Amino acid sequence: MELSRLGEFGLIEKIRSSFSGASSEIIKGIGDDAAALKTSRSKITLVTTDMLLEGVHFNLSFTTFYQLGYKSLAVNISDIFAMGGRPKYFLIGLGIPKGCDSKNIDDFYSGINSLAEKWKINIIGGDTCASRNGFIISGTLIGEAEKIITRSGAKPGDWVFATNTLGDSAMGLRLLEKTGNKKSKAKSSHFPFPISYLKLINKHLMPDIAPLKNISGINSMIDISDGLLIDLSHICDESKVGARIYEDKVPLSQELKEAAKNLRLNPLSFALQGGEDYALLFTAPKGFKTNAFRIGEIIPKGSFIVDTNGKEKPFKAAGYEHFKSKF
Amino acid sequence: MELSRLGEFGLIEKIRSSFSGASSEIIKGIGDDAAALKTSRSKITLVTTDMLLEGVHFNLSFTTFYQLGYKSLAVNISDIFAMGGRPKYFLIGLGIPKGCDSKNIDDFYSGINSLAEKWKINIIGGDTCASRNGFIISGTLIGEAEKIITRSGAKPGDWVFATNTLGDSAMGLRLLEKTGNKKSKAKSSHFPFPISYLKLINKHLMPDIAPLKNISGINSMIDISDGLLIDLSHICDESKVGARIYEDKVPLSQELKEAAKNLRLNPLSFALQGGEDYALLFTAPKGFKTNAFRIGEIIPKGSFIVDTNGKEKPFKAAGYEHFKSKF
Repeated sequence: MELSRLGEFGLIEKIRSSFSGASSEIIKGIGDDAAALKTSRSKITLVTTDMLLEGVHFNLSFTTFYQLGYKSLAVNISDIFAMGGRPKYFLIGLGIPKGCDSKNIDDFYSGINSLAEKWKINIIGGDTCASRNGFIISGTLIGEAEKIITRSGAKPGDWVFATNTLGDSAMGLRLLEKTGNKKSKAKSSHFPFPISYLKLINKHLMPDIAPLKNISGINSMIDISDGLLIDLSHICDESKVGARIYEDKVPLSQELKEAAKNLRLNPLSFALQGGEDYALLFTAPKGFKTNAFRIGEIIPKGSFIVDTNGKEKPFKAAGYEHFKSKF
Repeated sequence: MELSRLGEFGLIEKIRSSFSGASSEIIKGIGDDAAALKTSRSKITLVTTDMLLEGVHFNLSFTTFYQLGYKSLAVNISDIFAMGGRPKYFLIGLGIPKGCDSKNIDDFYSGINSLAEKWKINIIGGDTCASRNGFIISGTLIGEAEKIITRSGAKPGDWVFATNTLGDSAMGLRLLEKTGNKKSKAKSSHFPFPISYLKLINKHLMPDIAPLKNISGINSMIDISDGLLIDLSHICDESKVGARIYEDKVPLSQELKEAAKNLRLNPLSFALQGGEDYALLFTAPKGFKTNAFRIGEIIPKGSFIVDTNGKEKPFKAAGYEHFKSKF
């Protein structure tokens, strides 16, 4: 069977079932943002790995090497934050095409460094090799925690929260593609374009990530990398529950609304299905106090969106189309 | 400056100096087979990562997916063994080209599993994504040790040992390339070829790896992935010493000698410069008892090979030509 027919979930299930046996140290293996290992009495070690490929995950015609370095660490930090952990050690594998200027590699490492310094992460190793086809980046981040929050702890009655506005990154990507693609230029180019567009673009190229300051009381968490609906469905699947989301509660930035209006697009579809927000999505018991945006609640089963007229409709998880499955 | 002019050592130095700051937990960061972290009072956590690219590190016209899975774990295990550690947890990132049959992925994971079961390694996570250009494999292996052996502990007077015959893998690759390359077929094809060729080919496709049973008393260690001379020079550089190797002591298999004779090639150049042996190269004080092959000694400075006539000549580290630097 061709792999694309198996789909993302099929693939993860295949991988999960391929690997039998487990050590008593493993708290979480395949199937969360990061693996969790009980390495000492008081500490849990977290490990996550992420691959970024030129032409699939990034486009060098509108990404600088500095931004690429930054993002390759950011996406991994986001996974550690999603477990309630602190990032500590980074290993970076890099496939470099022939003829690459060493200045690009300097810039790439500077981008990594900027974020590593901010979060006090040490780069402890890696692997660099020649690539025949484009840049290949593979990051592995090790973190630690005393206590972890997984995808599987959501309970009916929990409130659902998002830590940041959603859809900005996906709109930023759309704007970049429109700018970078000469074919679509004629019809829709706006120059000078609104300065707010740059904010959206920046959210795509250099996502701003932050941990939850206090994880006590939280039942489940994931980072929004594939899109709100897909990532919420991961929580629902792993927790064996359902969810209800309110359209008018989904946080949209002014910049997203403005760009969507200009482009005659629905900002909500970016917020629901756009990926790479790297906001945290979490659930906590009713009444939980937080600065995050409350967007819905956990229910025993089913997945529903309530529109602005109060009408409830079921939703199917949908997001990024390219198949990518973190496990 | 174009990166290829900077060279492997230049690149590693660049990366080392790019990343400032260090945590007190880091025993070894960039510059050894694996990073070593003091994660608890009695235990050291080891981490290594390795990238394998289609068309650069492997050729699917003569490697099965099972073999590829096996090897992607083997090369990482070898790094953990080279630190004197035990492999424990594996994360596997995989870029899969469009149209790939899911049977191939099954085979790939079976290959990983075969070795994971042998060494009691748990697969705890990974990342799978679409690739536009060939298969991309990125493995990260976590191990543990109570005590580690680094590249930097060699002392003048130490004896130099290798745990296995050298050059077999490089000759295996040569045979595969000769078989797979139609242009070179006419002149040198032997069919049916000697059964011993299969042993060499197998050593390339599925390297047999093993730890040193007892690491006490050993001063330095590395795995031979780039070739004996290059990897020995890593030990010399990190330990700030020199080395003398005796040509007639370098262990050559009967299979290598036979193939080299048939192909009118010098078997020693495969043993000295061929990569991917995944034997361990270590140094220990004079008189050290071991089953490994003693091939030379550590001297205060300089690098020399003594030929079969007792004549000493300096050597420059040379091995795999494609640039790949593990750090």
